[in-house]
Amino acid sequence: MNAKHPPLIDGLQFCNWSRAVFEQMHAAGMTAVHVTVAYHGGFRPTVDRIVDWQWRLREHADLIAPGESAADLAAAEASGRTAIVFGLQNPLPIEDDLGLVGVLYRLGIRFMQLTYNMQSLLGCGWMEPVDSGVTAMGRGVIREMNRLGMVVDLSHSGERTTLEAIAASRRPVTVSHANAATWKATLRNKSDTVLRALAESGGFLGLSCYPVHLADGPATTLESFCAMAARTAEIVGAANLGIGSDLCQDQPDSVLQWMRAGRWTRPAPAAPVPAFQPQPVWFRSNLDFPGLAAGLRAAGFSEAETAGILGGNWRRFMAASFAPEGSA
Amino acid sequence: MNAKHPPLIDGLQFCNWSRAVFEQMHAAGMTAVHVTVAYHGGFRPTVDRIVDWQWRLREHADLIAPGESAADLAAAEASGRTAIVFGLQNPLPIEDDLGLVGVLYRLGIRFMQLTYNMQSLLGCGWMEPVDSGVTAMGRGVIREMNRLGMVVDLSHSGERTTLEAIAASRRPVTVSHANAATWKATLRNKSDTVLRALAESGGFLGLSCYPVHLADGPATTLESFCAMAARTAEIVGAANLGIGSDLCQDQPDSVLQWMRAGRWTRPAPAAPVPAFQPQPVWFRSNLDFPGLAAGLRAAGFSEAETAGILGGNWRRFMAASFAPEGSA
Repeated sequence: MNAKHPPLIDGLQFCNWSRAVFEQMHAAGMTAVHVTVAYHGGFRPTVDRIVDWQWRLREHADLIAPGESAADLAAAEASGRTAIVFGLQNPLPIEDDLGLVGVLYRLGIRFMQLTYNMQSLLGCGWMEPVDSGVTAMGRGVIREMNRLGMVVDLSHSGERTTLEAIAASRRPVTVSHANAATWKATLRNKSDTVLRALAESGGFLGLSCYPVHLADGPATTLESFCAMAARTAEIVGAANLGIGSDLCQDQPDSVLQWMRAGRWTRPAPAAPVPAFQPQPVWFRSNLDFPGLAAGLRAAGFSEAETAGILGGNWRRFMAASFAPEGSA
Repeated sequence: MNAKHPPLIDGLQFCNWSRAVFEQMHAAGMTAVHVTVAYHGGFRPTVDRIVDWQWRLREHADLIAPGESAADLAAAEASGRTAIVFGLQNPLPIEDDLGLVGVLYRLGIRFMQLTYNMQSLLGCGWMEPVDSGVTAMGRGVIREMNRLGMVVDLSHSGERTTLEAIAASRRPVTVSHANAATWKATLRNKSDTVLRALAESGGFLGLSCYPVHLADGPATTLESFCAMAARTAEIVGAANLGIGSDLCQDQPDSVLQWMRAGRWTRPAPAAPVPAFQPQPVWFRSNLDFPGLAAGLRAAGFSEAETAGILGGNWRRFMAASFAPEGSA
């Protein structure tokens, strides 16, 4: 690993964490990875997951390090380790208590989605039939996240909720892992309307390498993905673009069932268990991350733009976003 | 308030917190107060109490400030505010999870008793008929508290647990609020054996002004209290002595019932509700704290020793104790 290369940052992963995965991060020279700490569940189980991560950070301290601030990111990079940034894909860990936003910030959480797929106390997920937008509590939570330096993540939110949250937030928000809906039509990807509003607010888009978000699923080529990136950069600007791969490496299919159904519904016993699709051949693990550069260059991005998309942009956004409001 | 006076620090209070109490702290010129965040209950209700304190710190930021580090104590003193130091009188907030020690440290907890009055998962309280000493989990928790910089507080522990914890801890421990048992014979006060072991380990004793711990209850004179302080200083050294007043100002008697019975037992409905005894006339609120100096001087303490007992000693102990092991 060459500590002198430009930063490499992935804006979302949920691997089946192991020393082997951390060794791949290290071998790839990853500067930072935003990891999902919780998909479902409330405060108490989320604390258990944070404790799991605190033990991992101690037990693999030769490979990974905390990633809670600009200083943490710089320290991890200087020591050749991967900074781990904590995030939540669901806001129930704050339950109905505004004060828990600050508690979770202190415990290291730096990204929180206003919604996962369904209705939350804060807004609507993309799978709900009716999106009623950001709730009253949601508006207060966005203000508190802004104050503390916890990034509002709208990847899984419905269009109305996403647009209202962009407007409500005093600080730039992110769609940490999604693609352009014009390339792959799914409500999980983002319309040009959303992408324009995101760009106008100084927000940030992480492009996803998860098969369901790709135009041709697992068969999608790197060329097609990077051409989408180039068209998307025309809307959001290359400097507001990064990768949020949504890599779910080494997860059993049972985890996919849990991601989708959580405990909020109970699939019929006879229903087939959904299966993870294979990753495209050009993105199967962190080892493939540096190789995205060639595809971006071939799609017309300059060397500087490519370096920004692979890490420099996320580093700038994270460093500015993780500090308390008014401190920078 | 004269910001130039020597520091004034109370090593334990559990008042019915209000702006009026904080104004008295400010008027008295208190540098820091260790406040009890939890007596009974597990992790989840303790987090609610921490959230209550985070709101208080924001809403009364003109009077009080966080007290989590030497830097915090210095900053509060420089701005003429009282640093609030968080502590737990019961270790159940970590439940049976070693990782929750680190979680609570990150949420600001800097003191934790190994036991309140009864058996805990870590050791024995002074009210138990049999004290079996520090448990296996207790030894691991002491190591973790040492590593992080959370002070082991043995005020309510039984004699065997207290002696074993002093021996097990790699860093100095405290009895934050108790008196010499030779002055007021109660198992809640500390024997000379404990006081000697505490002193030999570099530990710290905070003297209590709570009527039940005083030789003559509410009628105890300042002279008698300070004479006890002088005799105790001969054992522990004046530099290892401070005040841990155990002030419970403005609390209703129902709180005393709850302190004693928690939810672990259920007093008979016909049983009389215990009542707080009146405070001695020389210590009814923070406003009386500076006046302790005259009593200590009259008991033979030098001006420097008196300043140490009223705050300088606690400040030195807290500043050294709150930093992670090996960082100072």
